[in-house]
Amino acid sequence: MERTLISDIKNFIDQEIFIKGRILNSRQLGPITFVQVRDYTGTVQVVFNTAQSVRPGDIVSITGKVVKEERAKIGVEIHGTMCEVIAGSVSEWPFDITKKELNLQLATLLDQRTLAVRHPKIVAIFKLYDLLLKYYESVMREEGFVEVKTPKILEAASEGGANFFKLKYFDRDAFLAQSPQLYKQILTGAFERVFEIGPVFRAEPHFTTRHINEYISLDAEMAMIDSFYDVIKMLSKVMKKIFNGMRSEGTEFLEQYKATINEVPDEIPCYKLTDILEILRERYNYNNPDENDIDPEGERLACRFAQEEHTSDFIFITHYPWSAKPFYTMPDPANPQETLSFDLLYKGVEISSGGQRIHTYDQLLKNIEAKGMSPKGLEFYLDTFKYAMAPHGGWGLGSERIIQLILNLGSIKEATLFPRDVKRLNP
Amino acid sequence: MERTLISDIKNFIDQEIFIKGRILNSRQLGPITFVQVRDYTGTVQVVFNTAQSVRPGDIVSITGKVVKEERAKIGVEIHGTMCEVIAGSVSEWPFDITKKELNLQLATLLDQRTLAVRHPKIVAIFKLYDLLLKYYESVMREEGFVEVKTPKILEAASEGGANFFKLKYFDRDAFLAQSPQLYKQILTGAFERVFEIGPVFRAEPHFTTRHINEYISLDAEMAMIDSFYDVIKMLSKVMKKIFNGMRSEGTEFLEQYKATINEVPDEIPCYKLTDILEILRERYNYNNPDENDIDPEGERLACRFAQEEHTSDFIFITHYPWSAKPFYTMPDPANPQETLSFDLLYKGVEISSGGQRIHTYDQLLKNIEAKGMSPKGLEFYLDTFKYAMAPHGGWGLGSERIIQLILNLGSIKEATLFPRDVKRLNP
Repeated sequence: MERTLISDIKNFIDQEIFIKGRILNSRQLGPITFVQVRDYTGTVQVVFNTAQSVRPGDIVSITGKVVKEERAKIGVEIHGTMCEVIAGSVSEWPFDITKKELNLQLATLLDQRTLAVRHPKIVAIFKLYDLLLKYYESVMREEGFVEVKTPKILEAASEGGANFFKLKYFDRDAFLAQSPQLYKQILTGAFERVFEIGPVFRAEPHFTTRHINEYISLDAEMAMIDSFYDVIKMLSKVMKKIFNGMRSEGTEFLEQYKATINEVPDEIPCYKLTDILEILRERYNYNNPDENDIDPEGERLACRFAQEEHTSDFIFITHYPWSAKPFYTMPDPANPQETLSFDLLYKGVEISSGGQRIHTYDQLLKNIEAKGMSPKGLEFYLDTFKYAMAPHGGWGLGSERIIQLILNLGSIKEATLFPRDVKRLNP
Repeated sequence: MERTLISDIKNFIDQEIFIKGRILNSRQLGPITFVQVRDYTGTVQVVFNTAQSVRPGDIVSITGKVVKEERAKIGVEIHGTMCEVIAGSVSEWPFDITKKELNLQLATLLDQRTLAVRHPKIVAIFKLYDLLLKYYESVMREEGFVEVKTPKILEAASEGGANFFKLKYFDRDAFLAQSPQLYKQILTGAFERVFEIGPVFRAEPHFTTRHINEYISLDAEMAMIDSFYDVIKMLSKVMKKIFNGMRSEGTEFLEQYKATINEVPDEIPCYKLTDILEILRERYNYNNPDENDIDPEGERLACRFAQEEHTSDFIFITHYPWSAKPFYTMPDPANPQETLSFDLLYKGVEISSGGQRIHTYDQLLKNIEAKGMSPKGLEFYLDTFKYAMAPHGGWGLGSERIIQLILNLGSIKEATLFPRDVKRLNP
């Protein structure tokens, strides 16, 4: 008999069907056995009028008749006639996977990741993550961006900073890419608009709830811009479409976390760093420790302000100082001590950095020198700017952070299938 | 004035418009200047009745009137009134980008990659590549696969073999993932069907036209299979849909290479390795040097056979010997010296490997021992199989190779934006 997917069984009322899936839970009530079975399309209850030797976690195939059942979420249940265990556990479970909430400590949750990921609430996280990827892919294409894949092994730790992982590449040293920054800029010369979804590697010794050392960055870069507000506008549009998509298609995953996705405003509020720091002082009596940046508490308050003043979960903070930004960042012609850069904050946390980039060779070279950097290792990038690069800008978005914040997860590691941190490379 | 995209100008006949783009070519005929301008949506000819100081490669903005022109590919041209250079070259081009064919040697083409990628024929390669990604993403979702992202930094070189790149991970050693194999198998336990698009890293000292050391693998894994032919059927369906998509949406890119995508048969021919070697002997008098594998010439002939006998560009070769396959490969119960594995060949070259995997703990452990391997470093993977894994299988597809073969490119490096080989880490 051919397998019927659980999402389809409602079309087979009073008919015999054959399903396959994993047992989520089972209980015995006198001679009756109730079994919850899940496949990749849904969950159904199967009722047997005999005892069944099945255990939660088993992989089974079941034959039975579909009957209407108004109390069931999907409107039907199965009266089972045959149940066969395709694969069972050969060891005691290290934790109880049948509980509604796993309530494991983060370290245990991650140590037991290969099994914990089967829990419906964890499945929900990564189904929402799948929607994030799906909508990013489709929305970027709608806007004319070409999907590119750039190398992760680099000859030089070329973007400055010490946060590169070093590897042995045959007979020489190489480095893991911290971002696709230089390549995506170069590629705007050919495609005008490009996007990339790929891993980035940061050798930063962080121990926080919002940093991991390998994450998936959603990058984009667009040329022919008139001003850096074109980048801000595009990112706003993209966020709105992605969040709308996740809200409408991800309802059941959001519900499992009692999470809601609020409407993204057509115009996300946008403040200069110096202005927002001033607002935080006046409004919340908060003195950010550093005038050149905004710290986590400042970010939280900036989002509180955006919520109170603009009913927005998002806020752009712009014009970070020149001294705080990488060499490729475009200084503001109106005030070269500031840059045409932005961070996008969501629910109190930075989820994206971006801005306009320098697009002429001379300015780039001068800026590299002004930063006290050497152009060595950057030749392939620098030389490209001798050949007519248009004004351009873009962003990098932290994919796992977005999911963490939407679902209010305690750590970004919960939004990462197999997270890497300073201490963790396993599983 | 707001920018009009070149793909839209046909809707503005006899109206004044403003475009931005890069000059592909320009020529002067007496007082008349003809300029080819490209943006990310198309190419148009602009005619000025005065001399213009523009050069190929310049980024320009142009104002002019749209007029019907039957001889033009897009049915219109622009009579230019104003042309402004937004960005020009400050150095002599190292090669002539205006030629219809670049005709650069491979090494030069790759050395000059950051500029050569702007040539329309190279743009076409990566626009087709973009379509490959687009259709893989959408087709896999249609089939119920969840997109996952698994770590590229691993604690152990766990799949066996010596072809791992080693890196320094804070205070210890780590390795770059050769494939998402172990993780995608584990994840079928949670999602049943998963796919991943990501880089894989192979420290293989190859010097061929079909190997690079970092490439993008299109992976998939599916559980609840009845036999390994379920995997073959799914991959056939996926290839058919992707190739149909690229053919219908990628016509103009294919035309630039005079390439055609033939219909993928509903049933791709499928032969056991021992049978195909026998056929090659009888039909083409070809003795494959190794009975346990098929060499490149054998693959070429197998595809010739598939073409002659089944009018198919594709052929599956199955049942590779146990000794030639990794530890997770399912032996054929009917003959444990053979495995339930396949390679998919296209136009004479392997583009995919896959098969059914061992799904019980005991068999896995025994197989690892039989291979003379140690389970050390594999614990997180092995332990998962104690807890009911369903029969499953999957594949990895080499994305760049597919594009190379469709467009008949001399080397896989031409189908890679910034390829990495034993000698090349730059650009």
